[in-house]
Amino acid sequence: MENDVPIISLTTDFGIRNGFVGVMKGVIWGICPHAQIADISHTIAPQDILEGAYTLWRAAPFYPPGSVHIAVVDPGVGTHRRPLGAKLGNQYYISPDNGLLSPLIDDAERNHLETKFISLDNPKYWLPKISRTFHGRDIFSPSGAHLAAGVPLEDLGSVITDPVRFKLSRPLRTSIGWQAHITVVDIFGNLTTDLQSVDILGAPDILFRIAGKEIRGLCESYGHKTPGDLIALVDSEDFIEIAVVNGSANQKLDCKVGDLVEVVVNK
Amino acid sequence: MENDVPIISLTTDFGIRNGFVGVMKGVIWGICPHAQIADISHTIAPQDILEGAYTLWRAAPFYPPGSVHIAVVDPGVGTHRRPLGAKLGNQYYISPDNGLLSPLIDDAERNHLETKFISLDNPKYWLPKISRTFHGRDIFSPSGAHLAAGVPLEDLGSVITDPVRFKLSRPLRTSIGWQAHITVVDIFGNLTTDLQSVDILGAPDILFRIAGKEIRGLCESYGHKTPGDLIALVDSEDFIEIAVVNGSANQKLDCKVGDLVEVVVNK
Amino acid sequence: MENDVPIISLTTDFGIRNGFVGVMKGVIWGICPHAQIADISHTIAPQDILEGAYTLWRAAPFYPPGSVHIAVVDPGVGTHRRPLGAKLGNQYYISPDNGLLSPLIDDAERNHLETKFISLDNPKYWLPKISRTFHGRDIFSPSGAHLAAGVPLEDLGSVITDPVRFKLSRPLRTSIGWQAHITVVDIFGNLTTDLQSVDILGAPDILFRIAGKEIRGLCESYGHKTPGDLIALVDSEDFIEIAVVNGSANQKLDCKVGDLVEVVVNK
Repeated sequence: MENDVPIISLTTDFGIRNGFVGVMKGVIWGICPHAQIADISHTIAPQDILEGAYTLWRAAPFYPPGSVHIAVVDPGVGTHRRPLGAKLGNQYYISPDNGLLSPLIDDAERNHLETKFISLDNPKYWLPKISRTFHGRDIFSPSGAHLAAGVPLEDLGSVITDPVRFKLSRPLRTSIGWQAHITVVDIFGNLTTDLQSVDILGAPDILFRIAGKEIRGLCESYGHKTPGDLIALVDSEDFIEIAVVNGSANQKLDCKVGDLVEVVVNK
Repeated sequence: MENDVPIISLTTDFGIRNGFVGVMKGVIWGICPHAQIADISHTIAPQDILEGAYTLWRAAPFYPPGSVHIAVVDPGVGTHRRPLGAKLGNQYYISPDNGLLSPLIDDAERNHLETKFISLDNPKYWLPKISRTFHGRDIFSPSGAHLAAGVPLEDLGSVITDPVRFKLSRPLRTSIGWQAHITVVDIFGNLTTDLQSVDILGAPDILFRIAGKEIRGLCESYGHKTPGDLIALVDSEDFIEIAVVNGSANQKLDCKVGDLVEVVVNK
Repeated sequence: MENDVPIISLTTDFGIRNGFVGVMKGVIWGICPHAQIADISHTIAPQDILEGAYTLWRAAPFYPPGSVHIAVVDPGVGTHRRPLGAKLGNQYYISPDNGLLSPLIDDAERNHLETKFISLDNPKYWLPKISRTFHGRDIFSPSGAHLAAGVPLEDLGSVITDPVRFKLSRPLRTSIGWQAHITVVDIFGNLTTDLQSVDILGAPDILFRIAGKEIRGLCESYGHKTPGDLIALVDSEDFIEIAVVNGSANQKLDCKVGDLVEVVVNK
């Protein structure tokens, strides 16, 4: 590991009420007691692999080299779906092999980073007893903890080259601009889209149409308009976002992930 | 302590909004700055000692030896109920003496583990000023932190032998099988019962009746049936669980803790 | 720093679902990998500076000397509002300069503690790239992490003397006693007021009027009355609190922050 302090993040749909995440931390610290453990999210919508994938993808790049990200949204637990370990660039990932890492793999390939995939089939790094329904505790946590403690990724199982991936939402070029799509609805009710700011860079005049409303131009930040105003701006990962100042665009527009945003560009 | 890294878990009904748990961590780190602290749950239903007890009982066994579990669901705060310290096997517990540790004490006795109980009446290990309403901050956190930092359990107060305990739900043997009861409703809507898989081991034919519905046979895991199917399976602690594949059994059946599950066994 | 283990607390309105807080921890550990990080709250009502201020103010005094408290409730993100660093007594604070620290500054002045304020305008201690909408990640987390890692507060930017402050709610003296106000509604539904227990100390007879109900006398703690009883008691920070035993005063009385509590004192 590149770090002398092992760092682990957790992303799950396990909720915060029943103690599932606390169990994972007990297992991890039994193996790697010095690990720093951060919660990225445990309130991913149950079994929503897409939301889990986007959430991890937005957070992981801000972690130091050598961090181990354990992500468990796992409708296939107890079936033959493989448990997956991965190295993408200088970060490590542990998850069910169900597409959770798709956006991260895409980015690693686009940026020509190292990619390595392992089926976590070495039971030496699991708990002694494996349940049918809680591999987050029995396989993913111990495998991730051993990795953080210095066990080489390759020792955790067999090399594979075909991790499950899904196609990510991408904006479509149109004759008048772009068809973008909502990819994330956050707790403020802000709507992130799949259109990157670089795609509309330098356009002097731009119009967004969403749910029957029109927004003219890009705003610098929330505080530059009046509370209640519907605005478009560049979000913290350089994607175009639709927001309501001091309010909720989601409440105002009643949108969901996948909904269209039509973008008219006049260069 | 058996560990060179002190490990503490927290289980409360304090919620995550008002900062009560953050205060406890400040107090703990003031005394034992190297302690790893895991949240097991802070959204136990207010004053629900039974839910707190089940939640801690499912999580604690997965912690490394020497861990200190601080659990505070405390409707009697500020009255004469005792603050309790305990050693059960190789783990330590700090809680109000109101039954929160009942399932853990039962298990320790059944497995002939060491049990030791202390009334935390040594104010040397409390905060200097004790409020009437927040012993989680003033007594339980500092006592637990001193314990994690190496103070012997016996120094925290006087030995007692009569901790408060309540009777746990147990399945009843019937002429046709068992009457089981729901013990936990988790955030997926899965319904855990008090019937252990070992109780119905080897039964070739089995039927579950719950809320007017029938489920035939045990399923291996969620992914072995079709989304929406009502199934029975063995949960991650070896109890029988009622679930809906990719859905919520609780929503479908509208059950609550204590509700009956009739089990018909044909050996 | 006074501590050999760096201790950081986080208070935000970022919610727990979208991974914003997990990102902040990744940034912090990239700079100060040994830091202990506690969550005080991430479910402050969106943009509610007042709730954030009260929550941090109740928690911070229980942290060890040298702790760094990062608080981000930031409706003005991306505008010209300054990012603020502060030393108040023996604790450090990092937040937008929008009043979040008001009650802590008031207390520090009243107790004649050291106060020092810095505009965090030294980009050497920011992330290399600054977004318009997530200074919690780009400015506050790295500045706080460098501070916790030993960088002097003064190095983080320019000294200022005019941090933004708002007037806190204070009880009014009346001919018959006090007009107090609700300042916090907690997750149990308890209603904290701005009246301190010292203000009514030694009054032999006291009456509270709230939302058309009357409460006679102060109760020692929740467990001294019957479940369902409406009571007044001294809370864990020595303010007068209105509560329902094993229930929710907020549900019973339907109050909100700012509502009046009339107090009749007969000495």
